[in-house]
Amino acid sequence: MVPAYALAYARENRPRFIEELKRFINFPSVSAQPKHASDLRRCAASLADHLSRIGLHNARMIATGHHPLVYADWLQNARGPTLLIYGHYDVQPPEPLNEWHSPPFSATVRGNNLYGRGASDDKGQMFAHVKSLEAYLRTCAALPVNVKCIFEGEEEIGSPNLHSFIERNRGSLSADIAVVSDMPIPGPNRPAITYAMRGGLSFELEVIGPKRDLHSGLYGGAVHNPLQALCEIVGTLHDHNGRVTIPGFYRRVREWKPLERKHMAKTGPSNIELLQNARATRAWGETGFTEYERTTIRPALTINGIAGGYQGPGTKGVIPARAVAKLSFRLVPDQDARELEARLREYIKDLTPQTVRSRLRVQSHAHPVVFDRNHPAMRAAAFAYRQGFGRAPIFLRCGGTIPVVDTFRQTLCIPTVLMGFALPNDNMHAPNEKFYLPNFYKGVTTCIWFLRALAASQRTRALPQLYEHVATEEMIASK
Amino acid sequence: MVPAYALAYARENRPRFIEELKRFINFPSVSAQPKHASDLRRCAASLADHLSRIGLHNARMIATGHHPLVYADWLQNARGPTLLIYGHYDVQPPEPLNEWHSPPFSATVRGNNLYGRGASDDKGQMFAHVKSLEAYLRTCAALPVNVKCIFEGEEEIGSPNLHSFIERNRGSLSADIAVVSDMPIPGPNRPAITYAMRGGLSFELEVIGPKRDLHSGLYGGAVHNPLQALCEIVGTLHDHNGRVTIPGFYRRVREWKPLERKHMAKTGPSNIELLQNARATRAWGETGFTEYERTTIRPALTINGIAGGYQGPGTKGVIPARAVAKLSFRLVPDQDARELEARLREYIKDLTPQTVRSRLRVQSHAHPVVFDRNHPAMRAAAFAYRQGFGRAPIFLRCGGTIPVVDTFRQTLCIPTVLMGFALPNDNMHAPNEKFYLPNFYKGVTTCIWFLRALAASQRTRALPQLYEHVATEEMIASK
Repeated sequence: MVPAYALAYARENRPRFIEELKRFINFPSVSAQPKHASDLRRCAASLADHLSRIGLHNARMIATGHHPLVYADWLQNARGPTLLIYGHYDVQPPEPLNEWHSPPFSATVRGNNLYGRGASDDKGQMFAHVKSLEAYLRTCAALPVNVKCIFEGEEEIGSPNLHSFIERNRGSLSADIAVVSDMPIPGPNRPAITYAMRGGLSFELEVIGPKRDLHSGLYGGAVHNPLQALCEIVGTLHDHNGRVTIPGFYRRVREWKPLERKHMAKTGPSNIELLQNARATRAWGETGFTEYERTTIRPALTINGIAGGYQGPGTKGVIPARAVAKLSFRLVPDQDARELEARLREYIKDLTPQTVRSRLRVQSHAHPVVFDRNHPAMRAAAFAYRQGFGRAPIFLRCGGTIPVVDTFRQTLCIPTVLMGFALPNDNMHAPNEKFYLPNFYKGVTTCIWFLRALAASQRTRALPQLYEHVATEEMIASK
Repeated sequence: MVPAYALAYARENRPRFIEELKRFINFPSVSAQPKHASDLRRCAASLADHLSRIGLHNARMIATGHHPLVYADWLQNARGPTLLIYGHYDVQPPEPLNEWHSPPFSATVRGNNLYGRGASDDKGQMFAHVKSLEAYLRTCAALPVNVKCIFEGEEEIGSPNLHSFIERNRGSLSADIAVVSDMPIPGPNRPAITYAMRGGLSFELEVIGPKRDLHSGLYGGAVHNPLQALCEIVGTLHDHNGRVTIPGFYRRVREWKPLERKHMAKTGPSNIELLQNARATRAWGETGFTEYERTTIRPALTINGIAGGYQGPGTKGVIPARAVAKLSFRLVPDQDARELEARLREYIKDLTPQTVRSRLRVQSHAHPVVFDRNHPAMRAAAFAYRQGFGRAPIFLRCGGTIPVVDTFRQTLCIPTVLMGFALPNDNMHAPNEKFYLPNFYKGVTTCIWFLRALAASQRTRALPQLYEHVATEEMIASK
């Protein structure tokens, strides 16, 4: 039952795979920046063409209101299960550009790493799946399971069109399990399956003052500076214990049983390890929780950016007419994004002094998710990792948000296997993003074994019972 | 004694003066932005050439460490007093560009206004003096007083090289009085002489966190976000009464006698007028003071800009590695900029939590100044305004800062007459800066009369005693 031909094909074609991945990365598919709209379209067209060339069927771009989706399938296995593979070809903005050692959209191999925006998030990781499909199709002319690929171009802007697309097409997208590879594992030889992710709520807070920018000499001291008012508001959103001050913010936050926190302490990164990954020297956050807990089972509020006033070199004596902060929450079970939005609006209204006006624009919502670690597909993934990396994976929670996972759960009623290949130091969302190439190769191997194990898991109960059964009501995804 | 020929010349040549001023404005002499260094040089060369062509002597550019000075003189009046005319040919950055109705460096007349960056601050106002000199020299082949012109290219960046230049050349720059036209008057028919200006202290506050930008999903809640910490620091710099919270900040702030505050209430703008000029709807600031007092005899702290994190369209899930705020104080007698800097450093150190680092970079210093409203040169200026505008000026304080005024006082031991021609709605430092052309014409007339009256003030005591003598120890400039 060893997929020997596919594995050999993958091994032999590594140099070509790297060249193809480089070309894929070189499309500046920055979904947040309107100037790159045509780059996303070109990237999507190239991806669809690639999927067709490796032997998938029905490969095509699908128009959304904004950046296109890419779809392809292979459905020739009448009795086998169907796997929905999700990835995203859009990337984070590369700014600040001056901190890159090589251009973000000119993928470059240095040592064991491939550098470029999207190298790991998510072009490199989704490519591991694509290449596993190619390896099977080229050597066996068939896949062991049915596959539907759905690759998105709007993940980094909160997937504004994906949810409705999946809802409208829930019939044709039906599957037994989804897989997403868009997260780091703890280390090169420490594979992990993510069984929980935080949700999200992103918004812009604008503070508006005088009708125009004012001379700070002539008016300084006599009008409320919107940038100052913004700092005064944002500066009170956390208390001295690192807790968010919005009334009722923690009311629905689930308290986990000691058994689960013990599992987390055993499998998750230590405080020191997490800080080393962050290249930070000092911990900070909600008292009473470890760093791993703070980033997974506790919610967070991050100020992602502020723009206001003069930012150029030197000085400018100005009181800006307005200032904007971009903020985002990470939510945990059983917080509800819509309920929180209402609380937030109320709180910001209370915090805004009468001397300025404020405006809140919510940009995206996503619910947190938690999956059963003992689901057969999870066990298939664990088996595949053991084959690909030579070690059994641990089950981890992740602080990030992949909104589509919640959509799959709600709309298609299926769980998602979250199997990452990136590393904590791959600089996802930061300058000098990279992908550790040995993990790419192991990722392809793991994906090949995953297809194989998934087929087996349905037919037999032969897969080793790797993990004790811990599914309880705690494991049920929160609404 | 009426300078009839010069006045007639100025009247007849108005259209040409406007064309020349437009060409002067079209040099994008933005001193804060390194990319414009050569534009400043070209602007300075053109100005020096112009001064030579109108009949001044020794016209030349003078190299500084950065942007050049322009100098010219006329010293043929052996017995007359010497007037030092200061102006600056550099301008504020034009950003945000999208708010301009016509390009900032393509000067455009619309109605009675000339639009362009620098139209009033300070190219237009200094040009009124230049054209008054031309009018005299072309019609009389002489000036009624000796004149030294010193035009700077670094005023908007805090005059980093001017002070030392004047110190090194205090002999050759010696004069009896200085004049600066770089401020607004209350209205088109409401001339004013500024007898007090606030000082300044500009600095950048940088807050530094992790070594690189972090993914806010993976690390949100576990590290102190430098942008959040910056808001937390900046948000505590004012209390609920609009007062700056730095310990000892108000210790040296002079309390003015009721007589002076009464004078201010009588001559200065009302609260409503000041807010209308600002196009703001709500007052804000230190309790117990009028808006005019808040902007003149009370110090202020303004956040001029903040740069941190992602500022582009859409969202980016990032914890920035660092964040920077640009701030500036406006200081009043008898605050000392150096002493305040020390207090500020101590305070910021105290406010910075152990979870981040902070760094303070002071960019410029200037002392506040107050002059005797009854000095003979002030009376000459008042007389000239009455001739030029048909109305006697009021004596006002200004919240802005012109560092050179303090330099003249300290280094050359002379007072400065601050006679403005700009209007409150001229958008100095803001988009759509303009100069109200009737004020330009009246400004040239006033400058011609000022030269005349200044010559007379030295020879005779014939100038009307326009104002009761109010010089007291309060009027002495503060150290």
